[in-house]
Amino acid sequence: MQILAEGTATSPRGFQAAAFACGFKRSGATDLALLVSDSESSGAGVFTRNQLPAAPVVLDRETLSSNSGRLRAVITNSGSANACTGMAGLEDAKEMQRLTAKDLHCDPDQVLVLSTGLIGLRLDMVKLEAGIHETSAALSVDHGAAAAEAIMTTDTRVKQTAVTVELPQGTVTIGGMAKGSGMIHPDMATTLAVLTSDAQVPPAILQKMLGHAVDHSFNRITVDGDTSTNDSVLVLANGASGVRIEDDIELERFGEALDRVCYMLAQQVVHDGEGASRFLTLTVGGAPDEKAALQVARVIATSPLVKTALGGADPNWGRVLAAAGRAGVELDPDRLALWIRNGSASEVQLVDAGQAAEWDEAHVATIMAATEVQMRLELGLGEGSATVWTCDLTEDYVSINTRYRT
Amino acid sequence: MQILAEGTATSPRGFQAAAFACGFKRSGATDLALLVSDSESSGAGVFTRNQLPAAPVVLDRETLSSNSGRLRAVITNSGSANACTGMAGLEDAKEMQRLTAKDLHCDPDQVLVLSTGLIGLRLDMVKLEAGIHETSAALSVDHGAAAAEAIMTTDTRVKQTAVTVELPQGTVTIGGMAKGSGMIHPDMATTLAVLTSDAQVPPAILQKMLGHAVDHSFNRITVDGDTSTNDSVLVLANGASGVRIEDDIELERFGEALDRVCYMLAQQVVHDGEGASRFLTLTVGGAPDEKAALQVARVIATSPLVKTALGGADPNWGRVLAAAGRAGVELDPDRLALWIRNGSASEVQLVDAGQAAEWDEAHVATIMAATEVQMRLELGLGEGSATVWTCDLTEDYVSINTRYRT
Repeated sequence: MQILAEGTATSPRGFQAAAFACGFKRSGATDLALLVSDSESSGAGVFTRNQLPAAPVVLDRETLSSNSGRLRAVITNSGSANACTGMAGLEDAKEMQRLTAKDLHCDPDQVLVLSTGLIGLRLDMVKLEAGIHETSAALSVDHGAAAAEAIMTTDTRVKQTAVTVELPQGTVTIGGMAKGSGMIHPDMATTLAVLTSDAQVPPAILQKMLGHAVDHSFNRITVDGDTSTNDSVLVLANGASGVRIEDDIELERFGEALDRVCYMLAQQVVHDGEGASRFLTLTVGGAPDEKAALQVARVIATSPLVKTALGGADPNWGRVLAAAGRAGVELDPDRLALWIRNGSASEVQLVDAGQAAEWDEAHVATIMAATEVQMRLELGLGEGSATVWTCDLTEDYVSINTRYRT
Repeated sequence: MQILAEGTATSPRGFQAAAFACGFKRSGATDLALLVSDSESSGAGVFTRNQLPAAPVVLDRETLSSNSGRLRAVITNSGSANACTGMAGLEDAKEMQRLTAKDLHCDPDQVLVLSTGLIGLRLDMVKLEAGIHETSAALSVDHGAAAAEAIMTTDTRVKQTAVTVELPQGTVTIGGMAKGSGMIHPDMATTLAVLTSDAQVPPAILQKMLGHAVDHSFNRITVDGDTSTNDSVLVLANGASGVRIEDDIELERFGEALDRVCYMLAQQVVHDGEGASRFLTLTVGGAPDEKAALQVARVIATSPLVKTALGGADPNWGRVLAAAGRAGVELDPDRLALWIRNGSASEVQLVDAGQAAEWDEAHVATIMAATEVQMRLELGLGEGSATVWTCDLTEDYVSINTRYRT
């Protein structure tokens, strides 16, 4: 597996993209992205578990259930989430699908639809129709990055990547773009990702692989687990490489590469967390099982007190233990141990047998001063382990979300 | 029931208090509070469900299980939580109990112990012993407010109240003091409350009543439900009024008054939320049952996006619905309705049938500009209802918790 320099969602063969500014964003920035496969593709999707799925989520689930074998495009707008918009919103999403299909001369059920932005706002269908015409006329293999930019909302950086995988039959490429601004608490449904590949993969296998990849990437940063109204990760695989994924070795390597692309995109999301200044890789080990480890890790990673301490470069292990203690997992306080480090430097133990270990204040201050910190909590109960990624909670986060108005 | 002007924990007959500055707080403020009943009291307690209970919590549970009928005192220190301090910390808590008992000429198991402050710090027993001597020599019925001040940590205001209740046999008084700074997310174990009464109440009844009162007050503001390492609510009832609580009418009125005192103290805690500038009373109705209503209400009330919108006086109903949608309760999006108001003004409907209602922007802006806002979400599924209280998430909250160092 090799990471491509400047890889995008159009790095795999047979994909083109375009972006346009419809006027959904007050800033005037681009807000419509069209991603098209030249040929029919397998598709798969993983969606939010929120009880109030946005219209595009409802529609895409329906589309994928009836047609996951001959998809052609993903149309994405930012600025409006088309969530909490009722039947009218669903009709808008369907119209968005139809308009795109018309311009691409394909069937509506060959088009997937994504929206992100403010909840409760209806789409301006006049502006959207004009935008769809513009993008479908401007498709190019060079516009992958432009598409990635158009799906941003409060994101400050474009999120995209691509990798190549050598397989016995030849080389396949997997690309992708993502957006996600409020990683800290993404309940405004802001995480979207679209992956592309020129491998040939049966839809059922693609769905299974995508589920695994998302579970170990986006679901390890979306702290309450896929809970916004719009969260969606889609993948299209068009087979343009001529390489079919079917044998064990191909399945394994392609799966690893898909995991890797999702992981890299998820990392880019967390690194662009609203107002974030410091990043935490948190591993909880020694849990009864992986589920329990993940449960403890998520509670720690969402604790405002842990997150503000991280912002203050404060090795406040008491807050970490207190958060672990309320995660709903039975703990033995006397077995808890906690270590921190940054980069490849050796770990420093902060907690031993549930109490303060002895450490060098100056050394710990140096570790915490870094932009990226690793923390490892051992529960001493079993073999279960899980890693999550989070960032600090800063005054900037509050400022951004206080001022991001309806 | 009547609220006493300037009521404190020593308003009920037969209670005295004292405070002293041992030097646990860097500021030099008082940090030790002793509350004593002149005679033996019934006692009850409700404690954190955190898996890492602090030493005083472990000790008080033990004390109350062996002696809930002849308690004499509660000794409370601030500045150090005596949590995550292992066996040595438990010995410190026991020594704190013994030292207090010695000065009061009673048995150790007649003394309850509370600590609040930083986790992981051992108590300075030399300073503590001196402080216990000082407080036990300075007991007075006039020092209720001083005691309430000594249990504060990042609190900006003293929290105390007292009410009188007329009963057939005579009048009884219930007083109380509380501390709680980080209401927004109290996983640093910062909520303590001590209630007092001159009524005569059997311990088992007192425990049951306290459970009810806490469940409808402190547990409606502690967002993950009693989850810090130190959270404790204690009550002592010494019978000094000569009025025994045993008949239905007495049980009902005394219970209501205890509910009321807990409610008022809990309200004082939420109004002193770290960095808080705006307060939200959130009622979720139409739920399948009360438990489901409470579950939805708590998720909304803890959402950073809802809390930052509240800070920005932004009627961002989309964030409220999105939070409701991830609460783990099955919802019918088309039945959701949301109203806001402030004070006694009439409600304005923001959401009807799961979508934006029509409202007057200027009017809604006036409502949101108030310091106290009420919000009502109807799920349209059943008869379950619950109310919780919360405050906004501000840059000051982040600032306080970033700088509150270990």
